[in-house]
Amino acid sequence: MDGAGPVVVVAGSGALPGQLLAALDAAGRPCRVIALGGFADAPIRRRADRTMSLLDVSGVLAQLAEWRPSAVTLAGGVARPSPAALASGVAAWRNRRELAEIFARGDDHLLRGVVALLEQEGHVVLGAHEIAPDLLAPAGLLGSVRPGPEHRRAIETGFSCLAALSPFDVGQACVAMEGRVLAIEGPEGTDRMLRRVGMLGRGALGLGTLGLGGIGRAIPFLRRAEPVGGVLVKAAKAGQDRRVDLAASGPRTVRNAARAGLAGIALGAGATLTIDREAMIAEANRAGLFLVGVDPARPGEIPS
Amino acid sequence: MDGAGPVVVVAGSGALPGQLLAALDAAGRPCRVIALGGFADAPIRRRADRTMSLLDVSGVLAQLAEWRPSAVTLAGGVARPSPAALASGVAAWRNRRELAEIFARGDDHLLRGVVALLEQEGHVVLGAHEIAPDLLAPAGLLGSVRPGPEHRRAIETGFSCLAALSPFDVGQACVAMEGRVLAIEGPEGTDRMLRRVGMLGRGALGLGTLGLGGIGRAIPFLRRAEPVGGVLVKAAKAGQDRRVDLAASGPRTVRNAARAGLAGIALGAGATLTIDREAMIAEANRAGLFLVGVDPARPGEIPS
Repeated sequence: MDGAGPVVVVAGSGALPGQLLAALDAAGRPCRVIALGGFADAPIRRRADRTMSLLDVSGVLAQLAEWRPSAVTLAGGVARPSPAALASGVAAWRNRRELAEIFARGDDHLLRGVVALLEQEGHVVLGAHEIAPDLLAPAGLLGSVRPGPEHRRAIETGFSCLAALSPFDVGQACVAMEGRVLAIEGPEGTDRMLRRVGMLGRGALGLGTLGLGGIGRAIPFLRRAEPVGGVLVKAAKAGQDRRVDLAASGPRTVRNAARAGLAGIALGAGATLTIDREAMIAEANRAGLFLVGVDPARPGEIPS
Repeated sequence: MDGAGPVVVVAGSGALPGQLLAALDAAGRPCRVIALGGFADAPIRRRADRTMSLLDVSGVLAQLAEWRPSAVTLAGGVARPSPAALASGVAAWRNRRELAEIFARGDDHLLRGVVALLEQEGHVVLGAHEIAPDLLAPAGLLGSVRPGPEHRRAIETGFSCLAALSPFDVGQACVAMEGRVLAIEGPEGTDRMLRRVGMLGRGALGLGTLGLGGIGRAIPFLRRAEPVGGVLVKAAKAGQDRRVDLAASGPRTVRNAARAGLAGIALGAGATLTIDREAMIAEANRAGLFLVGVDPARPGEIPS
């Protein structure tokens, strides 16, 4: 952000683009907004300088070349376009074999490819956390509910598990209960993982199979009425490019954790984004969930 | 199995109890069968010496004391009884605090508790793999479809991931595609994990959210028509008691892997059970899936 040009926010859905714009406005930084058609929310679309298609890669690059931004940031959600549409949209810049390789290696790689493309064109790409560091979860208690000493082990287990998984391009979140891990987030995302955990607790999986001597995997035993509850733990993958895939949470995360019967949420401090933190804290207080930021390197140091 | 008494098979549902009895018959070992009411399949119930309730722990122990078995084995699936029913059934032998601790630590621990209870009573508890070692997946190609060189990386990634997870009482199976892990099995079991992977491939999750600068997690891009497919990898957790929770696969596993669009299945050789292996191989051949046993310590050595 040292250049003279504006910061360009390429905006998908959700609250993050608006929060970034507010941070840029507060800092007195000039900015331009490209709203991605079909994704950006109404307030962003009204504020946007341009509304463009996600697939109009050449158009976006031409617009950026004209604006000569000091930095570009990608923020918000977008639906995955069909592979064919995406391929034709990007084909001008990437040969197909390269594209196929990027696709095969997962979305982190796909997004890293988009970042690399922008950088090839001479742009500086910043992550949301670089523009608005206040969005990063701080260490310490965020809401009014405190985790009990019985949740320490779950929090430590969760962070250790995510650290162990970091080489595998999977798992920015998990649910732990005492010393065991109940679920690990895959590409389906945090909300669906939480739904899965909620079904385990309610017995709604319906199978209830206990393995005896080798058959079946067992259904865990979540006692919701007990103080020893499950904890959602979110962290950044080690070595990931935080500009493209920083774990994020918001009020919906809290609601879904409450529905799944969890006791609280532990966020990697300085390593995960909180979107609309005030609403998030209000939801957590209302639902009786603790919400803490924890240094992933010292998961045992939890305010309680 | 060195004593003079019979081997007692405590039989839940599925094909495993029958396969164990066939192995014992073939070896000329006398045996007795306790069918667990409501779980054991009809052929086992007909053969059984007793049909007893899973919750009648005192009755089962009294029967065992009378038979003076040389060994006891637990085989087959059972539904998880309600916590209250289970607690009252076992309460005579375990104090409640101990029970609560076992429950909180997961089903492996619960089953280990049952094994410990039997051992306290002086019984020798054997795993299915000790009675019928032929059920363990052997190393090498099992079906007629060979994994391609493009599947090696997925197989290695899968085994590495499961090894990394072994401290966390989760994950005896995962699905890997090239260098990334698409799903990790939790207590919901292999079949439900495969269904989740199938939904990713079909886009049936409906969300298709790509994370940009921190929002959302991304939906992977499974191209089913391509030769580079996903692989189901199953292994034993390091340090687990194989008498209580050895990963098992059968024909249904193959059908579900095929439905999920996977290219094949890699089983930890000597470390996972194959139930009805002939039917499993026939299913794999019919579906065009490879089925290989792989030494978990050398996942790179794959027949191809």
